Amino acid sequence: MPESAVQVGIVGMGTVGAGVARVLVESADRMASRAGRPVVLKRAVVRDLERDRGVTLPAGILTDDVAAIINDPEIELAIHLVGGLEPARQIMVDLLKSGKDVVTANKALLCEHGPELFGLARELGRTIAFEAAVAGGIPIIATMATCLTANQILSITAILNGTSNFILSQMDREGWSYADALKKAQELGFAEADPTFDVDGTDAAQKLVLLTQLGFGMRVPLETFPRSGINRLELADLRCADMFDCVVKLLATAKLAGGKLELHVQPTLVPKTSPLASIHGSFNAIRVVGDVVGETWYSGQGAGQSPTASAVLADLIDSVIGRTRLTFYRLAPWQDTARLPLQSEDDAEARFYLRLHVEDRPNVLAEICDALGRNSISIASVIQEEAAEPEETGGTSDSTRSEETPVVPLVIMTHKTTVGRIRAAEARFAELGSVRPGHCRMPVADL
Amino acid sequence: MPESAVQVGIVGMGTVGAGVARVLVESADRMASRAGRPVVLKRAVVRDLERDRGVTLPAGILTDDVAAIINDPEIELAIHLVGGLEPARQIMVDLLKSGKDVVTANKALLCEHGPELFGLARELGRTIAFEAAVAGGIPIIATMATCLTANQILSITAILNGTSNFILSQMDREGWSYADALKKAQELGFAEADPTFDVDGTDAAQKLVLLTQLGFGMRVPLETFPRSGINRLELADLRCADMFDCVVKLLATAKLAGGKLELHVQPTLVPKTSPLASIHGSFNAIRVVGDVVGETWYSGQGAGQSPTASAVLADLIDSVIGRTRLTFYRLAPWQDTARLPLQSEDDAEARFYLRLHVEDRPNVLAEICDALGRNSISIASVIQEEAAEPEETGGTSDSTRSEETPVVPLVIMTHKTTVGRIRAAEARFAELGSVRPGHCRMPVADL
Repeated sequence: MPESAVQVGIVGMGTVGAGVARVLVESADRMASRAGRPVVLKRAVVRDLERDRGVTLPAGILTDDVAAIINDPEIELAIHLVGGLEPARQIMVDLLKSGKDVVTANKALLCEHGPELFGLARELGRTIAFEAAVAGGIPIIATMATCLTANQILSITAILNGTSNFILSQMDREGWSYADALKKAQELGFAEADPTFDVDGTDAAQKLVLLTQLGFGMRVPLETFPRSGINRLELADLRCADMFDCVVKLLATAKLAGGKLELHVQPTLVPKTSPLASIHGSFNAIRVVGDVVGETWYSGQGAGQSPTASAVLADLIDSVIGRTRLTFYRLAPWQDTARLPLQSEDDAEARFYLRLHVEDRPNVLAEICDALGRNSISIASVIQEEAAEPEETGGTSDSTRSEETPVVPLVIMTHKTTVGRIRAAEARFAELGSVRPGHCRMPVADL
Repeated sequence: MPESAVQVGIVGMGTVGAGVARVLVESADRMASRAGRPVVLKRAVVRDLERDRGVTLPAGILTDDVAAIINDPEIELAIHLVGGLEPARQIMVDLLKSGKDVVTANKALLCEHGPELFGLARELGRTIAFEAAVAGGIPIIATMATCLTANQILSITAILNGTSNFILSQMDREGWSYADALKKAQELGFAEADPTFDVDGTDAAQKLVLLTQLGFGMRVPLETFPRSGINRLELADLRCADMFDCVVKLLATAKLAGGKLELHVQPTLVPKTSPLASIHGSFNAIRVVGDVVGETWYSGQGAGQSPTASAVLADLIDSVIGRTRLTFYRLAPWQDTARLPLQSEDDAEARFYLRLHVEDRPNVLAEICDALGRNSISIASVIQEEAAEPEETGGTSDSTRSEETPVVPLVIMTHKTTVGRIRAAEARFAELGSVRPGHCRMPVADL
């Protein structure tokens, strides 16, 4: 080796940390060959020194004191795998201040405190690499930051939450309920014990903030754009989507629309002819359109020990050989220089899927069509199913209620319109006695 | 701008060159912002000074003398877009010797003379970047060379020739003949006037050589692995593939199989459930499996003016900011260090599709099954169609011949076996009077 070894420390030995440590220890020759010098894991900080992590480390590496890395000047590079906001933020600040370059997988931290942390790194002459923060093993950060540099990005459309995609796949392909699919995702380790951020769209929205920063040069705070998750979808919606030759996916979208930036995370009908429709299970996928390159697609495991470790280690090698420094200071992918106005949610255009619960009596369809027509919404197709016979209703929620007017699902596909018009029609539905509360609305992806 | 402008020259103003020139001239601000300094197109070498290229360049840029770039010490970077082997090779040598870093899109040149050219660049302290040489706008070179560095690559499976994929898509989806689809591809500019290298698998094989070098660290000469193209496929084969829920794609494959490297380019049945099956028209797609990252996918326009220009310009920016130098000298993606034995073609394993032309008489199926069985080939399914009635035969080539025993197509899907066993069975078929010459054999992709 022409140069001396580089010493690294890992802060946070959860699933990903253990995966990174395993490659560093078990594939040391490969890492040395790629990085041009040995990469030695000197310390790894854990909360519980006794827990088995499925990887055998040489004695003296594990510690429960993060100061063992921060105060060790021989450790040049820190792999920051602490989740959440605090103490993750403080630890990263301390690592940077102690002169270490940092590789992180924490998208929530960069989404919330990116400007502060990137700014601090710059001030101190340090770097932060974050390939692992979005879409696991898919090299989407490198692609956006360094491979599509000749482009004005026009749109990003992505499946960024593997837990939601796994749940939707199981519901769609196996006919499972949302609750059963979520339980299975937790058993398999895809979903956290508290899966709220996965299923309510927050996790995907945090990743979208980072991709938007890379693609459009603009930091859009999480709370300024709409997000919804899969936690209110019913199996019936997936079955209705199928009737329109679509599948339901939780899509994160950032796109230029008439000079404005449109951002949202929401369950969306994806035509089966789109490659996004064939992204199953815990896979992620990202479609990026640039004004020069046209349409490009990226897919792979969006989470998990090994895929995320692959991304962390690619950043580690890039940091060792100096590419990260050039990326961070010359391409400056974290810069917040564009000043695009955000499009108002009401102005977002799409075809829409609506599933209403309506009374099964004469004139109801006419009332609904009138409510849509008054708002200039044109109907592409309507599916109205007959009320199930009382003895066949079983456990379905859409069935008749005894002693009342039967209620049936009415599914409408509109032509292209705006969210604002749909909302105006929905306000009118609320005034109609014939439409029950609690309908489902999803846009159809234009892919 | 903190630094002075970088002056660049383009050698070869064909489709891609004109696309690169357009972005340099029309999006100069964007390029300056990304590269950190103005990128100025100083000279562009053309063969015909009069031809309209659809882009307006300032006066004095066009020249028909490559020496105008080679002998201009102010030009630091040369964009080499000369096709073929000579004079493309000599021009690149001259550019490197005159002290310029080079960005090229010429895969045939790097496939044939890569070691010589990369070696010369190293000796002279120069760099060669070649993102545009494989798969147009898809950043697969950067991905393999710099993003999956923590991995031992296990397999590369790819659609790398847009012309072939366009022809197959039109045959499959529109029912066009091979000849009609090829003609349309030429009209649309996908296919060259002489499309031989596109349709016989050579173009895809050249790209596979480059991807194999990046993925496995080993240069495998073009002539040492089997390649076949789509030029002998019949519409009937695509229809039969459909019966097995597959589509036919021209796949380029490099994979580790039992410690050996298996390489080939060949028409292949791809199950419709695979994302590769949904790659239509002139799109390319690459599936890369690494031991750490698992399965990853990349897709986009595989050729054409703008997508390829996007790749050239990304390399240009990387060269200006110094990332290319680190990649070229530290990651050294062109290195030829691995010494994996090549797997013999006979040992390649797959399920196989066979379409035979057999006489429609008793005992023929038994003879064929016997020939397969003697070679330990197990049959998964058989489709034998009835001979068409004479008055219905129309123009199909599989129909009966007057005055002879009727000939019918017999389609067989085998279980997993080897090419060697299939070949032994084929030798036996040739001895049977009941099997006519000219059958079709394709493997089924294990995706």
